Amino acid sequence: MKKIINLPENYTDDMLKGIYSAHPDKVKYVNDDLRCYCAVKEKKGKVAIVTGGGTGHLPLFLGYVGDGLLDGCGVGGVFQSPSSEQIANVTREVDEGAGTLFLYGNYTGDIMNFDMAAEFLEMDGIKIKSIVGADDLLSSKEVDTRRGVAGIFFMYKCAGAKASLMGNLDEVYEAAKKAKENTGTVGFALTPCVIPELGHSNFNLGENEMAFGMGIHGEPGVWNGEIKTSKELAKEAVEEITKGIGLNIGDEVCLLINGLGATSLEELYILSNDVTNLVKEKGVKIYRTFVGEYATSMEMAGASISLCKVDDEMKKLIDMPVDTPFYTQK
Amino acid sequence: MKKIINLPENYTDDMLKGIYSAHPDKVKYVNDDLRCYCAVKEKKGKVAIVTGGGTGHLPLFLGYVGDGLLDGCGVGGVFQSPSSEQIANVTREVDEGAGTLFLYGNYTGDIMNFDMAAEFLEMDGIKIKSIVGADDLLSSKEVDTRRGVAGIFFMYKCAGAKASLMGNLDEVYEAAKKAKENTGTVGFALTPCVIPELGHSNFNLGENEMAFGMGIHGEPGVWNGEIKTSKELAKEAVEEITKGIGLNIGDEVCLLINGLGATSLEELYILSNDVTNLVKEKGVKIYRTFVGEYATSMEMAGASISLCKVDDEMKKLIDMPVDTPFYTQK
Repeated sequence: MKKIINLPENYTDDMLKGIYSAHPDKVKYVNDDLRCYCAVKEKKGKVAIVTGGGTGHLPLFLGYVGDGLLDGCGVGGVFQSPSSEQIANVTREVDEGAGTLFLYGNYTGDIMNFDMAAEFLEMDGIKIKSIVGADDLLSSKEVDTRRGVAGIFFMYKCAGAKASLMGNLDEVYEAAKKAKENTGTVGFALTPCVIPELGHSNFNLGENEMAFGMGIHGEPGVWNGEIKTSKELAKEAVEEITKGIGLNIGDEVCLLINGLGATSLEELYILSNDVTNLVKEKGVKIYRTFVGEYATSMEMAGASISLCKVDDEMKKLIDMPVDTPFYTQK
Repeated sequence: MKKIINLPENYTDDMLKGIYSAHPDKVKYVNDDLRCYCAVKEKKGKVAIVTGGGTGHLPLFLGYVGDGLLDGCGVGGVFQSPSSEQIANVTREVDEGAGTLFLYGNYTGDIMNFDMAAEFLEMDGIKIKSIVGADDLLSSKEVDTRRGVAGIFFMYKCAGAKASLMGNLDEVYEAAKKAKENTGTVGFALTPCVIPELGHSNFNLGENEMAFGMGIHGEPGVWNGEIKTSKELAKEAVEEITKGIGLNIGDEVCLLINGLGATSLEELYILSNDVTNLVKEKGVKIYRTFVGEYATSMEMAGASISLCKVDDEMKKLIDMPVDTPFYTQK
């Protein structure tokens, strides 16, 4: 295992200490629990948005807590769910009386704990609505059992902007739902990653082997085989997404090219170029392109491609400024 | 070689096409040469800043071209210098009559080509001053032969801000020089990277081996040995930097924790936590912390630590907003 760490069992908490000491003006923790992560600034009367999930995907999930995006995050251990208590404590801190939207990825453990937290909080009189990201098109044919991956960025962006504009809880929920319904992602891995406490990869890929459709925790993909070119990968992914979200000539999309961790920005732009050409060939216009690491799997090599079909309202929400320690948009 | 690419020989140009198609509102190229990279916006009468260097280090070098930072960049092939013609063409495009500062890393090929470009341009009546980044403390005992690495960020930031404030060419040069004199970097690699056209690593590290003081092109470091913990690496690096830039009790610094490519953000924050504790133990205050990928070596695993000793003037310059496709600061 080649990692810059101290004790593997302290991976999550050492990371959190680093984040709090680097950005004390922006984020804090509550209830003496490093894993109850909240924005420092509060906007009176705003609908709160709380997310959560396992460690190992930075900037997902906590990196989207900040101005114009989310208000709090329950932080789990590596690839583990945060507890219902952590989610509830974060929500009690950030709820401003206008209700809280739970917005997180579609994973069984997370759903169980967020639902349990919602029950506690509703007993305290806090109004909760919940929605999960489920954009990973190749993970399941049914949206209810699809995993959430990098495309959740568009849900965060639209819901966060709507909340900043003082939308009510139903409106913030609807903004997230619209982004969900219009976003699809396809990803592929070239190398696995290593869970610090295990010390070895939880799956293997041969020297020239890759996995197409693989999940960000190493869930099996739709095929394993020899590494294809960027153009070939772009073509296969764009075909799947076009079918998945139903793209037609004249549609407009935002494009997100996400690195899974070890893949260089240079490669992400090579892939972005190929995807852009293919999308344009379909008569679809790209409104805005995002390239970088938005949802990783520690040092996994690979990338994902997300398209989000946008209308004028969504474009306005996506263009609104945000500022977190991990992501700033003017 | 596990990379998302098409033809290896098209690596640099395919990447550039991706960048121009993703960010047409922010960057463009001139002279029909993708490698003559310029900001779209021009600020009348401002001193221009031009950088340049090899591909393979994103966001270095071209990623710092944008509002509040640099104006243009000559882009070389992977780990190669841009030509003097490219540097001159970029400069002719971005010079606004107030002169241009050449600000780049201390590498022989780059110096030769920037100096040659300066000669051409001065014949055309364009005023040029030059300064090189040379922050890699372990690369040489003499500053004149030290390599430039991630610490050049502070030179870019100070000079870019000074130019935005309409400082003259001498003042912009002095801002860069002050940042240079107060910045030191120490880096270490856990894995090598692969040059696309070669298809294999240009050096090797054993399964548990790392290289301390290694350069971003794979230049040999001061020791190769078993992987140390984050705390041990932080201690060794902070001692070197404290000596290198002369830190004393009561001093104030900015801290930059830079990932070399494959190292996860989680690990960078673990390292940041250890460095922060050590710096504070020395009675030195950290004014601002930057954590992320600022100067990479494609998919090399590893990190670098830079400290920049700051005074009130530098803090003001470092805090000024910037906006490039790769880096935004509010």
